[in-house]
Amino acid sequence: MQSLSKIKGVYCSGVSAGIKSKGLDLGFIYVPSCNASAGVFTTNQFKAACVTRNQAMLLADNFKAIVVNSGNANAVTGQEGDTNNQKIAEVAAELLSLKAHQVVTASTGIIGKPLPMQKYTTGLSELLADPRLTRDDLAAQAIMTTDTVQKTAYIEELCAGQIVKCAGIAKGSGMIAPNMATMLGFIVTNYPATKSELQECLKEACDYSFNLISVDGDTSTNDMVLAMSSVEEQIVASPEAYLAFKRVLAKTCQSLAQQIIRDGEGATRLVSVSIKQAASYDDAKKIAMTIVNSPLVKTALHGADPNWGRVLAALGRAGVDLKTDLVNVCMQGVKLVAAGQPITFDRNDLHHRLESSEVLIEVDLGLGSAAVTAWGCDLSRAYVDINVEYN
Amino acid sequence: MQSLSKIKGVYCSGVSAGIKSKGLDLGFIYVPSCNASAGVFTTNQFKAACVTRNQAMLLADNFKAIVVNSGNANAVTGQEGDTNNQKIAEVAAELLSLKAHQVVTASTGIIGKPLPMQKYTTGLSELLADPRLTRDDLAAQAIMTTDTVQKTAYIEELCAGQIVKCAGIAKGSGMIAPNMATMLGFIVTNYPATKSELQECLKEACDYSFNLISVDGDTSTNDMVLAMSSVEEQIVASPEAYLAFKRVLAKTCQSLAQQIIRDGEGATRLVSVSIKQAASYDDAKKIAMTIVNSPLVKTALHGADPNWGRVLAALGRAGVDLKTDLVNVCMQGVKLVAAGQPITFDRNDLHHRLESSEVLIEVDLGLGSAAVTAWGCDLSRAYVDINVEYN
Repeated sequence: MQSLSKIKGVYCSGVSAGIKSKGLDLGFIYVPSCNASAGVFTTNQFKAACVTRNQAMLLADNFKAIVVNSGNANAVTGQEGDTNNQKIAEVAAELLSLKAHQVVTASTGIIGKPLPMQKYTTGLSELLADPRLTRDDLAAQAIMTTDTVQKTAYIEELCAGQIVKCAGIAKGSGMIAPNMATMLGFIVTNYPATKSELQECLKEACDYSFNLISVDGDTSTNDMVLAMSSVEEQIVASPEAYLAFKRVLAKTCQSLAQQIIRDGEGATRLVSVSIKQAASYDDAKKIAMTIVNSPLVKTALHGADPNWGRVLAALGRAGVDLKTDLVNVCMQGVKLVAAGQPITFDRNDLHHRLESSEVLIEVDLGLGSAAVTAWGCDLSRAYVDINVEYN
Repeated sequence: MQSLSKIKGVYCSGVSAGIKSKGLDLGFIYVPSCNASAGVFTTNQFKAACVTRNQAMLLADNFKAIVVNSGNANAVTGQEGDTNNQKIAEVAAELLSLKAHQVVTASTGIIGKPLPMQKYTTGLSELLADPRLTRDDLAAQAIMTTDTVQKTAYIEELCAGQIVKCAGIAKGSGMIAPNMATMLGFIVTNYPATKSELQECLKEACDYSFNLISVDGDTSTNDMVLAMSSVEEQIVASPEAYLAFKRVLAKTCQSLAQQIIRDGEGATRLVSVSIKQAASYDDAKKIAMTIVNSPLVKTALHGADPNWGRVLAALGRAGVDLKTDLVNVCMQGVKLVAAGQPITFDRNDLHHRLESSEVLIEVDLGLGSAAVTAWGCDLSRAYVDINVEYN
């Protein structure tokens, strides 16, 4: 499916460099006309070499190319890891006739093992032999680890005769949690945002998408979302076009985030938890993520069990001040708790409604005007099977 | 096994009142000579009727008797729940010739259903027909829900010719997390503590036991630990005896907490996470609980996989400031991370060492002098099986 290459002046592809035992494992995205670049990174205190370097690069200048590998995270690899990471950027930059600081890197996979540098540099020569390819499918495949499907998105909006576009690819699966947990997202747009506009809009889009999803509450050392704007289409900036850009960027990030959840390890249902009338975004997010991460809620949903008691228990321990007698809870549109008290419902009917690939839990707090929707999945035996040993 | 009744003047038993579909479900502990009583309660904002009432009773006076049922939590049951709870205390008080405020209650089980009051009051008449029984086994059984074994403890210490004793029973299993999560603990002692001493010591003992355990990070509406001192043995209070009392109380709570974890839903290993050289108790607790609750760490341990990367990832997202290059990590005494970097180890040997019913993870932060050990368990397919539907 076409995604990144729907934006003119965006090039990408992927190859198999032998970093993983099989499959594609090395990819690139290259935007020669890149006007602005931005990034949002993991908050985990153990940061991979690529995270540390990219954060520094972004302060200095815009990057024009991303080189990414799967199979090895190059995290907790010490000084050698930093050196290897810098080397990769230098080799790629030379092949693309760029400066080293114009190339950023991303890695995902096993922690604590040195990168296989010989394979990596040989792979880069093959990958970048023709840097004007538009092989979205190969790029999307090259970043997959335990993912079972490619994750791509493309959103456009017509605005005063111009089409404002965003496209992206992502990888996720296990260890997905807020604050960029073991996930990678790469977004491109045709809107000529300034560097600060792109950074601000990307941060906000992440706060309402990637930072509101969770497969298991764990976060990782390598997570990042990067964005680049290509100016080849010569879209004219305007306040209206900027707002359109913000909308398509937000939708692109939400689409990718939801695809990550649907492909969560062992997941059989996409669970949306919608918090309304909270006192603040932070309160709403805390509650939504506590419910989304509760193993008891997740196992109940796996069994299509309308267990509102577990939802209330999670709500009550989220660390947010509540007025318990104002709380309303619905599942699949069926009201289960009104003004803090359980109400009768057709249990059998709701059980069948919960046997769905999409489940909606709505919690109304009656306290303020903030609203947040977080996304998670159920907890299945397959999640345990996948994670008992991961090599 | 004798536990509560090792303390002179402590009476207890249990009966089957039909609140559960089968098995014992109604119990009591009665200390006619009770000199001081104390309680530590769930911090969940949805509190069961018994929690709210007991907290109020404790402010007013000491209680001398506990009535406890399993099978129905009497939580999220509104005004009717409060009325029923008060009625139980009144009926029990009359049967024991006490005032209603001298009887506290505890309930565990399904949320949101009214108590079956006819069965309950009939059961109380049977239970309290002879209030001088010492049937520790029946009392311990009456509080079990998904527990598979009774949990009892007895610890004593000789101090200047006097034997200072603590004994207790507990229930736990699923939904165990810090802050008194769906667990009940009832402790008795022969030490003549004052009310404020007993409260302070119980709080501290809980902070280093029940509040440092987790099966799945969820907490409940009904959890409490109650304590009573019996003065029939006429132990003489002294600074030395007080310290001995603090030690036996702490050990009693730790023994019960560990028994709860060993019986965690689907658990096959007791996991101890020991944090050393932290800047504060709060920091150490945050880190210990984040590691203990990580589904990725828990599934790795189920597979006896020495996955130190998942331990570091959990450490890095615990919300505590670290110096990552000072961190040391050991599993089963084998050093895996030194000064923030992985070191080589015999993976096959450690895999075999991890195939144990007890696993120890040690994390040294190199920052300060605070130390905390938290206890958890692995995450198995059986946990999912047990929790997919719970009725």
